[in-house]
Amino acid sequence: MSIIVQKFGGTSVANSEKIRNAAKRAVAKYKQGHKVVVVASARGKQTDELVADAYELNPDPPKREMDQLLSTGEQQTVSLMAIAIQNMGYKALSFTGHQIQMITDSVHSKARIESIGSEIIHEKLDDGYIVIAAGFQGIDEKGNVTTLGRGGSDTSAVAIAAALKAKQCEIYTDVDGIYTTDPRKYSKAVKINQVSYDEMLELASLGAGVMHGRAIEFGKKYGVEIQVRSSTLDIEGTLITEEVPQMEGILVSGATVQSDLAKITIIGIPHSPGNAAKVFSALAGTKISVNDIIQTELDDNSANLSFTISKNDLADALKTIKAIKNEIQYRDLFIREDIAEVSAVGIGMRTHYGVADRMFKALAENKINIDSITTSEIRISCLVDKQQSDKALEVICDTFQLDKEPEERDM
Amino acid sequence: MSIIVQKFGGTSVANSEKIRNAAKRAVAKYKQGHKVVVVASARGKQTDELVADAYELNPDPPKREMDQLLSTGEQQTVSLMAIAIQNMGYKALSFTGHQIQMITDSVHSKARIESIGSEIIHEKLDDGYIVIAAGFQGIDEKGNVTTLGRGGSDTSAVAIAAALKAKQCEIYTDVDGIYTTDPRKYSKAVKINQVSYDEMLELASLGAGVMHGRAIEFGKKYGVEIQVRSSTLDIEGTLITEEVPQMEGILVSGATVQSDLAKITIIGIPHSPGNAAKVFSALAGTKISVNDIIQTELDDNSANLSFTISKNDLADALKTIKAIKNEIQYRDLFIREDIAEVSAVGIGMRTHYGVADRMFKALAENKINIDSITTSEIRISCLVDKQQSDKALEVICDTFQLDKEPEERDM
Repeated sequence: MSIIVQKFGGTSVANSEKIRNAAKRAVAKYKQGHKVVVVASARGKQTDELVADAYELNPDPPKREMDQLLSTGEQQTVSLMAIAIQNMGYKALSFTGHQIQMITDSVHSKARIESIGSEIIHEKLDDGYIVIAAGFQGIDEKGNVTTLGRGGSDTSAVAIAAALKAKQCEIYTDVDGIYTTDPRKYSKAVKINQVSYDEMLELASLGAGVMHGRAIEFGKKYGVEIQVRSSTLDIEGTLITEEVPQMEGILVSGATVQSDLAKITIIGIPHSPGNAAKVFSALAGTKISVNDIIQTELDDNSANLSFTISKNDLADALKTIKAIKNEIQYRDLFIREDIAEVSAVGIGMRTHYGVADRMFKALAENKINIDSITTSEIRISCLVDKQQSDKALEVICDTFQLDKEPEERDM
Repeated sequence: MSIIVQKFGGTSVANSEKIRNAAKRAVAKYKQGHKVVVVASARGKQTDELVADAYELNPDPPKREMDQLLSTGEQQTVSLMAIAIQNMGYKALSFTGHQIQMITDSVHSKARIESIGSEIIHEKLDDGYIVIAAGFQGIDEKGNVTTLGRGGSDTSAVAIAAALKAKQCEIYTDVDGIYTTDPRKYSKAVKINQVSYDEMLELASLGAGVMHGRAIEFGKKYGVEIQVRSSTLDIEGTLITEEVPQMEGILVSGATVQSDLAKITIIGIPHSPGNAAKVFSALAGTKISVNDIIQTELDDNSANLSFTISKNDLADALKTIKAIKNEIQYRDLFIREDIAEVSAVGIGMRTHYGVADRMFKALAENKINIDSITTSEIRISCLVDKQQSDKALEVICDTFQLDKEPEERDM
């Protein structure tokens, strides 16, 4: 008997009807002869409500207590799910992070999993129970409740699947899989049947927000097969797996666009060790997250340093950088607002030439100006004017035939 | 430095403002130089909401899962309380039942406390923290969450006070203490300054619902001084303590009335061992709780058996008793609906004669018919017609001067 882990996010358990549906999914797998572990998030908007309650009492609530507070959301879901499954005539037991010994470090609000009491889960599975475990939460060695931060329940599910050597980790969500691009922006987008961990990591970091990067990293590290699928439709979703040879034939698996970016260029930073580090540690100090970084050498023993940030962070970022002008002695700042980044991702790029070339040519033919370019081994990203970003995405999708199943595409 | 335990019930922590008030109470005691442990219940109607959620999924929700579910209510309150106290600039830590090792038996929904990890609490108190512990909940030896049933948070508070050898356990509530009788029924009632555990147990069992009997029993067993006081007014409440000599001078400490009772008399039960037991075990089987029982012998080697029950249970009780007619061979049933019980309670009765006499005489002078009488060492109860019950209570209160402070009463 193989073990299946099923994860249900907040929208998939938001009310009684949805909890009952999720329970049916678990029972269906159980009846097929699998051992089933369910990992659940807090119901709907409950976490938001608890956060609001806390801020009403304290504008800077202590993290340990926030973790203690927020972990109740998942605890409620798992007991309600066990109550629903037992009503269908099956054995079920709910477990908190502490009860399955989900041990983490002590970094409240973004703890890292250290170990899982898999023998406790195995014992109950062997006794015929469907096991319902609270996602997102753990305890540290002293018994303090911790939470795993954004996307934490996905990470819990994949980690439990890894610890139990499960056959598959199913991530149930309100979309039916990962698409070649956002269907709201490119209506011809098709669902990806199979994608590698590395591609999914790139897509996730570029804002294809179905799954959080940490969970995918965990899956990659422990070789857990992850399926992202619909909690309402009974159809196959997208499989995130290890790289298999036929994936190399696919030049581009998916494309993304991130709008509402701003680009800052610091002009004329004198060459001196650690100057770039000073910039980014100052920005990190104000919790501004920096995307692509480009440094270009100038003739006069200085350099230009460009990077993109969320447009919302622009005012704070400028303040931070101006505050270190005396220290760094740069000449000027150049700002470009209303910029967007379009990207193409595919492990086929590793072995096939000409992907970047085709992309740049197609954009040029459509009179889309490229501000700058960054790449990784399996990704090409271009900064473009925000007003042209939807068009740019469409051009990339058309160029790499992201409206077709991979086997139907021309190379 | 002495330890004070403060318990706040659901209405005293129902919203942010009330949580902040409760936090202020804790901080005030802390600033007076005490070590402070707060025990808190779930906020307002939250437990009711969670129960409703569970019944929507299952008409007979499993008790283990209900305990897991309901325990989140207190967990939320304690973390919010710690968040509020830290906002006032004081150190506070919240603890679940599992975190303070509140070990109980495994009887879900009405578990009994077996031990408490008092060294964990002492350590944090010594470090200068205000400790906030979740009431109502514990864990069994296997780590399953348990709850203590009705009045459970009171019991948690008194048990923690006992384990820590606290100076006092303060029960904050929406009334400012225990009154000689219900002020809604006898407006001249006065607050009792001091009452013994035994008297309070009798009063609680007769429906003076401020504190649950189990908590008082716990207090009696471990000699914990309990103060019931207002969460909104800053005045002394009622002290529940060990018996002290001057209490004996008080003939009657309090009076109660329980309305909406019904009385069933089973006529002519043949004398045969175990017949009465059969009646009460049949009633217990249908979860009907039986109050006073009176058995009177008849001449013909049979007996009449009377008892009172809540009027709501009358139909079920009759069905149950009729179902065992063949087995027991009683002759007839006599039912009296719309009956009430008035009681006077006081440890002075132990040493003073004539209390019952004065009570019966006063009732007779006021043309109140007594249906039947039951007594304990410190209590006299009379069944009267429901329509006369408020008058009966008033007569008893006037007779024993329950509108006056004890020292102002004539003996």
